Amino acid sequence: MNNLGIVKRNITRADRAAVEKLSRFGVATIHEAMGRVGLMKPYMRPIYNEARICGTAVTVLLQPGDNWMMHVAAEQLQPGDVVVAACTTDNADGFFGDLLATSFQARGAVGLIIDGGVRDVKDLTEMNFPVFSKAIHAKGTIKATLGSVNIPVVCAGAQVNPGDVVIADIDGVVVVPAEVAQKVADAAQAREANEGAKRAIFASGVLGLDYYKMREGLAKAGLRYID
Amino acid sequence: MNNLGIVKRNITRADRAAVEKLSRFGVATIHEAMGRVGLMKPYMRPIYNEARICGTAVTVLLQPGDNWMMHVAAEQLQPGDVVVAACTTDNADGFFGDLLATSFQARGAVGLIIDGGVRDVKDLTEMNFPVFSKAIHAKGTIKATLGSVNIPVVCAGAQVNPGDVVIADIDGVVVVPAEVAQKVADAAQAREANEGAKRAIFASGVLGLDYYKMREGLAKAGLRYID
Amino acid sequence: MNNLGIVKRNITRADRAAVEKLSRFGVATIHEAMGRVGLMKPYMRPIYNEARICGTAVTVLLQPGDNWMMHVAAEQLQPGDVVVAACTTDNADGFFGDLLATSFQARGAVGLIIDGGVRDVKDLTEMNFPVFSKAIHAKGTIKATLGSVNIPVVCAGAQVNPGDVVIADIDGVVVVPAEVAQKVADAAQAREANEGAKRAIFASGVLGLDYYKMREGLAKAGLRYID
Amino acid sequence: MNNLGIVKRNITRADRAAVEKLSRFGVATIHEAMGRVGLMKPYMRPIYNEARICGTAVTVLLQPGDNWMMHVAAEQLQPGDVVVAACTTDNADGFFGDLLATSFQARGAVGLIIDGGVRDVKDLTEMNFPVFSKAIHAKGTIKATLGSVNIPVVCAGAQVNPGDVVIADIDGVVVVPAEVAQKVADAAQAREANEGAKRAIFASGVLGLDYYKMREGLAKAGLRYID
Amino acid sequence: MNNLGIVKRNITRADRAAVEKLSRFGVATIHEAMGRVGLMKPYMRPIYNEARICGTAVTVLLQPGDNWMMHVAAEQLQPGDVVVAACTTDNADGFFGDLLATSFQARGAVGLIIDGGVRDVKDLTEMNFPVFSKAIHAKGTIKATLGSVNIPVVCAGAQVNPGDVVIADIDGVVVVPAEVAQKVADAAQAREANEGAKRAIFASGVLGLDYYKMREGLAKAGLRYID
Amino acid sequence: MNNLGIVKRNITRADRAAVEKLSRFGVATIHEAMGRVGLMKPYMRPIYNEARICGTAVTVLLQPGDNWMMHVAAEQLQPGDVVVAACTTDNADGFFGDLLATSFQARGAVGLIIDGGVRDVKDLTEMNFPVFSKAIHAKGTIKATLGSVNIPVVCAGAQVNPGDVVIADIDGVVVVPAEVAQKVADAAQAREANEGAKRAIFASGVLGLDYYKMREGLAKAGLRYID
Repeated sequence: MNNLGIVKRNITRADRAAVEKLSRFGVATIHEAMGRVGLMKPYMRPIYNEARICGTAVTVLLQPGDNWMMHVAAEQLQPGDVVVAACTTDNADGFFGDLLATSFQARGAVGLIIDGGVRDVKDLTEMNFPVFSKAIHAKGTIKATLGSVNIPVVCAGAQVNPGDVVIADIDGVVVVPAEVAQKVADAAQAREANEGAKRAIFASGVLGLDYYKMREGLAKAGLRYID
Repeated sequence: MNNLGIVKRNITRADRAAVEKLSRFGVATIHEAMGRVGLMKPYMRPIYNEARICGTAVTVLLQPGDNWMMHVAAEQLQPGDVVVAACTTDNADGFFGDLLATSFQARGAVGLIIDGGVRDVKDLTEMNFPVFSKAIHAKGTIKATLGSVNIPVVCAGAQVNPGDVVIADIDGVVVVPAEVAQKVADAAQAREANEGAKRAIFASGVLGLDYYKMREGLAKAGLRYID
Repeated sequence: MNNLGIVKRNITRADRAAVEKLSRFGVATIHEAMGRVGLMKPYMRPIYNEARICGTAVTVLLQPGDNWMMHVAAEQLQPGDVVVAACTTDNADGFFGDLLATSFQARGAVGLIIDGGVRDVKDLTEMNFPVFSKAIHAKGTIKATLGSVNIPVVCAGAQVNPGDVVIADIDGVVVVPAEVAQKVADAAQAREANEGAKRAIFASGVLGLDYYKMREGLAKAGLRYID
Repeated sequence: MNNLGIVKRNITRADRAAVEKLSRFGVATIHEAMGRVGLMKPYMRPIYNEARICGTAVTVLLQPGDNWMMHVAAEQLQPGDVVVAACTTDNADGFFGDLLATSFQARGAVGLIIDGGVRDVKDLTEMNFPVFSKAIHAKGTIKATLGSVNIPVVCAGAQVNPGDVVIADIDGVVVVPAEVAQKVADAAQAREANEGAKRAIFASGVLGLDYYKMREGLAKAGLRYID
Repeated sequence: MNNLGIVKRNITRADRAAVEKLSRFGVATIHEAMGRVGLMKPYMRPIYNEARICGTAVTVLLQPGDNWMMHVAAEQLQPGDVVVAACTTDNADGFFGDLLATSFQARGAVGLIIDGGVRDVKDLTEMNFPVFSKAIHAKGTIKATLGSVNIPVVCAGAQVNPGDVVIADIDGVVVVPAEVAQKVADAAQAREANEGAKRAIFASGVLGLDYYKMREGLAKAGLRYID
Repeated sequence: MNNLGIVKRNITRADRAAVEKLSRFGVATIHEAMGRVGLMKPYMRPIYNEARICGTAVTVLLQPGDNWMMHVAAEQLQPGDVVVAACTTDNADGFFGDLLATSFQARGAVGLIIDGGVRDVKDLTEMNFPVFSKAIHAKGTIKATLGSVNIPVVCAGAQVNPGDVVIADIDGVVVVPAEVAQKVADAAQAREANEGAKRAIFASGVLGLDYYKMREGLAKAGLRYID
């Protein structure tokens, strides 16, 4: 019954083509395409504004003040993976810095999502290694207690299974379960298709009230215009 | 006694010349000129550092997770207006994105102040549409419940009446009641006038202790210098 | 027994050479070199990303909503000093702006660390006057109540004595007691020396698991690999 | 244009009979009866669980760390009044303790609502003087800067005008504008009237799904039952 | 791919005997017995100190400001169930009050765990209906948007599947997956068995240092005693 | 330069008579008597309302998620001591429960102040072992990393040296340096002496405005009474 102290080596990653397709869309679009579920909490912010991630999750469960499992996770990384690190308790210590980022990059990882702190932010930025975290904190960590790698985790309020697609940009972080990645990518594409048209229509001065035919619904709901 | 479900169409906007004059000054200066009232809480932050707004308020009262009233507000916008959106409860959902921004811009709005979340931040930044919000969040909203447009609202701790002047910059967001806009603009100008001179004086090494003649007051209050 | 209303004029500043040496290292490195103590809380953030400070502390204890002591502190500043301002209670008012910054700069101060708010951020950025604060807030302050200058203070969770070295960068703010400044600088240098080598090793694909010989320890702790 | 430094002596208090009638209902009921507006933020908590207030507002605008205006307000109190204290900035200092409570009680005040801190909580509890605050804090305050008494204030996110009815219980704090006090009291009574009946119905096992006839709406909205 | 708008009727509840056994132990003990996973965040607090819950989860996913699904959930309740309500976004509205509690109680539910707000706390307390929530808030909700019932949810940072055992007391809220309920109950019992003995030993003055044989480990780690 | 891994055995405790005298006064009174310094932050709350502590500090510096040093501290306790536990980073884990409390009580300790979490609150309450903490959390801790005992620490924003007097009640927690304990106790007594008289005066209807002769000062500051 204990899911601490486990490293799962073989995980089923989302289909590469679906991941690639998802990488073309923003987090807000994908979140809508998926039916408005799977978002992490908005306290997860990029360490630099242009940071963007789309990859398959290698999950890590950390202990507070301890980044031992980050080293264990490094070995499980394949090109295109993103590390998603949760913690057994709220903790903003700097679990991750430039050396681990170098290791992760050497193995082809495309970024880190961590419900904790990171440090060496200047180096990480220069390395173009995107990180979304809840804090920046110079406080270092020890290597003393087991967590796990590639078990299901809750990260910043979202359930993440190893192999899921995780997409992150300035609007936030969203998790797409591996088994629906292709469907969500298709739905995102469909959604995006008519966005350009809509934007032109609204730019021309047409109101959403008319375009979405809201006036009747508003009147029924009892909206009153007064002078 | 119910002020939900109301759209007030005719509002008295602050004098255009006063608004233009206020646009020349920073938020800190205007706040001082007004007697240190009217500031929103400091959690209201710009979505990009250069964001700056000075306009007349069209107010919106939103329901949590619902942006129906933003569409209703769009129709009430005139060039030079800024939308000030409050919510009936704390909620950081992404009430606003690039499509609404396109509509708002098409009608001449100069920005958005929202005690809630926004999304499509990359697009908004490229559009140069300034937003001050309490959060960035990809989470979308529905259109199901009535709020109101152009009623008095409390937004981020400040009372805002429709037509008031709202000024926002990197230092925060301040509300100037329409009826005192001209007086505040004049006071801000007077205040600003001698700032340049003061800055030169302090740059030359003169201390505030001497310039403001504080030494006597400090001594009276009992300040002791020890070695 | 009262340490309010005091200004200590003669303080022992950390050795200049040690300060200069410390200025070459990042906050995370120095924090490690010192044995992982002395960090301020991570809510202390730079007002612009490139802000960096390394200087000797002139400490200030402020009262809420009152910046009188900042003016008193200005007179105690020597070139190379950094002002470290604590407050007797949590308060995010804008205690500091461009005029005080002009005074501080005129006396050679290299920055401000404040467990409170600042304003005129656009001006401060243009002046290249680095500030680390817990808030940006246009709200001004009065000059009515005595605090102290150059007494020991607790700032953002860290004990700071006048004359201590304070280093701040994007990773946070760390305090090095004056009496160990040289030793910490030496330790930081030693630590930094082999970082470059390590980074090359990790970039080549060597894992931390092997480089740090963690595999045995992990096995002993009970880590299980499953498929 | 400055509303600091003002004491308004003659205010129009809500009708005494309406206040008395409102005192019979809970905050949740009154909030519903008023159309779901006028609530303070939920961080306002009673200093003891049984605290309950219903009175007419004498408003106070405080400066951070300064309770001078509480003494000024005391003189304006009439039997049945509740003091509603806002602050020009976020501040949790202990603005209020047993001596002020004694003064307030001597004048017939029925409680205090304060967007700040209080102290002497043991004494206040023994005196049965109900207080709703955002913090308990032993930190004292000074008497140096003017605020105002009986001007409109924003307290914990709610607009309060002098004379309004303020009701507080374990569920929170709600503000009823004086001019609608009677109507809201009547609506609250109507609402309460059929609550007892409803409770009996639900206790008997009838579901809200059936009692409120929600099944059709849920089906239309697309709810699917699966096994 | 959409898990909104779903009600799962047949769920596998944890074995009744295991639930009963778990009900004898505190949350801290069960959390330890399970290997230190499954805890909700500590912001979840009881509405009254004596509140205690042990039951099988019927899960609800709410929309912000909307409690429609609570009514849908009521119909799915069986004796011994506890409702575990998550929300698609952070929202502290009062989703639950005395009428819903009456319904829940009528169907044999033993309590509510909600990552949101509740109201009518006085009534709930008098009804002895235990609730653990993140807020108390009089703000009511609407019934307009679909969520789901009996899907896996993340509630206050913990993954909860329908049928899992949820135990709550003054120390917090812990989730025991249904499939390990019996094992965890046994482990909790084993753990509790020697607690009484230990307490007697420590009460006699024996130190944990000696009882747990920590002195050697501390010395090895480098602990130094100085005078 | 490293102050981790140290246990100081011989500390100078504040004079027993002074401690006893301080135990007669409330935290607010002592804080005033000391000149309004030395308070911990108001997030430190008692685990039960009647909790009250007055003792001499044995300080502990904890690592996140690790309570090893609490056991080390136990051995250093003498009758009348209070343990004051700080942590190297923000962490709300449950560092302390009924077994440690039994040990502490066996050695005569009078309570615990911890800038972290505690658990077994029901037991602690039944044992009448008073604790002031920033959280209640069932999450347990490990014993792996050295901190220190009886070094100066910053706890909840206050500097505490071993041997200082720490007083805690419903109003908060205050630290009185050992060397001024007697003076502060005397000042507290003087302060308390005329409180009873004052309370009678205010109860009779005399206003603070008159008793403290504030009217002239208010007028000078510009206070205006309007009708």
